[in-house]
Amino acid sequence: MTSLRPAPGPVDLSSIETDAAPGFAGKKAEGQAALAALGPELADQQERLFANRTTGSGSRVLLVLQGMDTSGKGGVLRHAVGLIDPQGVRITSFKAPTDEEKQHHFLWRIERALPEPGYVGVFDRSHYEDVLIHRVRGWADADTLEQRYAEINNFELRLVEDGCVVLKCMLHISADEQKARLQERLDNPEKHWKYNPGDLDERALWPAYREAYEIAIERTNTETAPWHVVPADKKWFRNLAIATLLLDALRGLELQWPKADFDVATEKRRLQEEDPVR
Amino acid sequence: MTSLRPAPGPVDLSSIETDAAPGFAGKKAEGQAALAALGPELADQQERLFANRTTGSGSRVLLVLQGMDTSGKGGVLRHAVGLIDPQGVRITSFKAPTDEEKQHHFLWRIERALPEPGYVGVFDRSHYEDVLIHRVRGWADADTLEQRYAEINNFELRLVEDGCVVLKCMLHISADEQKARLQERLDNPEKHWKYNPGDLDERALWPAYREAYEIAIERTNTETAPWHVVPADKKWFRNLAIATLLLDALRGLELQWPKADFDVATEKRRLQEEDPVR
Repeated sequence: MTSLRPAPGPVDLSSIETDAAPGFAGKKAEGQAALAALGPELADQQERLFANRTTGSGSRVLLVLQGMDTSGKGGVLRHAVGLIDPQGVRITSFKAPTDEEKQHHFLWRIERALPEPGYVGVFDRSHYEDVLIHRVRGWADADTLEQRYAEINNFELRLVEDGCVVLKCMLHISADEQKARLQERLDNPEKHWKYNPGDLDERALWPAYREAYEIAIERTNTETAPWHVVPADKKWFRNLAIATLLLDALRGLELQWPKADFDVATEKRRLQEEDPVR
Repeated sequence: MTSLRPAPGPVDLSSIETDAAPGFAGKKAEGQAALAALGPELADQQERLFANRTTGSGSRVLLVLQGMDTSGKGGVLRHAVGLIDPQGVRITSFKAPTDEEKQHHFLWRIERALPEPGYVGVFDRSHYEDVLIHRVRGWADADTLEQRYAEINNFELRLVEDGCVVLKCMLHISADEQKARLQERLDNPEKHWKYNPGDLDERALWPAYREAYEIAIERTNTETAPWHVVPADKKWFRNLAIATLLLDALRGLELQWPKADFDVATEKRRLQEEDPVR
């Protein structure tokens, strides 16, 4: 797959196609087959990660999912993250902060939701809301926002130093695609629960959100925790891209099966010759 | 599927076959196909549950998994719970309590891990450890254990009254099957990480654990939160049984798609005729 990392410096989202499938030659059916084909190695890699908990390794992965309403965060959870053994996955969906959360630093609730070693943590929205909706709605002033970008970079750098791969993905859809998806939610009574009249008020702020994303990505697109902008109009490509990024992240950890910290021959003898259960 | 609920009163686990597939006529291949066939309805039911969060409904499901080492709690998470959209699942694995947890009532950490409305929560081990290993190891005296059974019943009754289906499953394997599974972990270097010499010390207490399970099940086998003893020597039957129980639990909630709390026609007009994005 072609790299989805924007180059360092200013980001122009309008120059990144939303309905492309960069680096993948096939169409939907081939893309779905390619996703399914990743399953076994993803499962193997995730089990190695989980196994390494027992060695005191700090290795873990944090997948951060950001994107406009209807960009498909839920679909990624189902179809890409769903390929991994749920035993080793910890998903957190961040909503508007609670009263308790509001009384703390914006990273407080994030810290509490970080995956422990051995786990793949997934954030459905994240600390980036504090520089996205907060910027768009004017809930934070310019100085505060600048401070937050820096705090986020420090926070993520520390995470990476602690053994956590930080995989930040923006699901990039077009305004037209969002319109079609909102229409679908209105047309299908089984999807009405996903619709909220406030969604249109947010949609009205589309240009402001795009700018907020561009600035946030530019400011936090670090070498240790880079952003990936994932074309997401094609659901199958979005899922394939995220699963591929997850697999690459796990491969990059070069995880070996932990060696036994006991004498295998002794234990075999104990089990067979001294079996305590008669 | 035949009911897996032990009758009220004393429980004799030795009278419940571990390698049976009660109520299922087929063999392994048919069982695996039957499990896969549950996927779509499980997904549909779980999405209905998730959707009902938005209505203020308290409905949720808590699956409690208990069983001896190697009984397959991890396999159930992968193969049965894994059929459900991970977005709507919250898994908690309970280990030996932390120092902080030890300073609280034994239900404190349980309360904190309960699923919110709309979610399927899964406990890999649970509050039952406080009447199982605590009984076997003598960490709690008889009076304390009696008090805990009563507290558990009260706790679970309250949960059910709050809209939470409490689905308690004991994965029931034979001592011979455990021996074979421990042997497999010793034979395969990729499974050494799952083995701990202490597993054999626990195995030595097999009869005491069986008794502790029998008493715990008897004391907490309530009408509101009954136990299910799942024959678990056959992994495929174990997975099928748990998935079937989960599906039955969800069906029992009679979940409807939430009605729109907005005027659909108005929203369609807003989206099409007053689309704020130009």
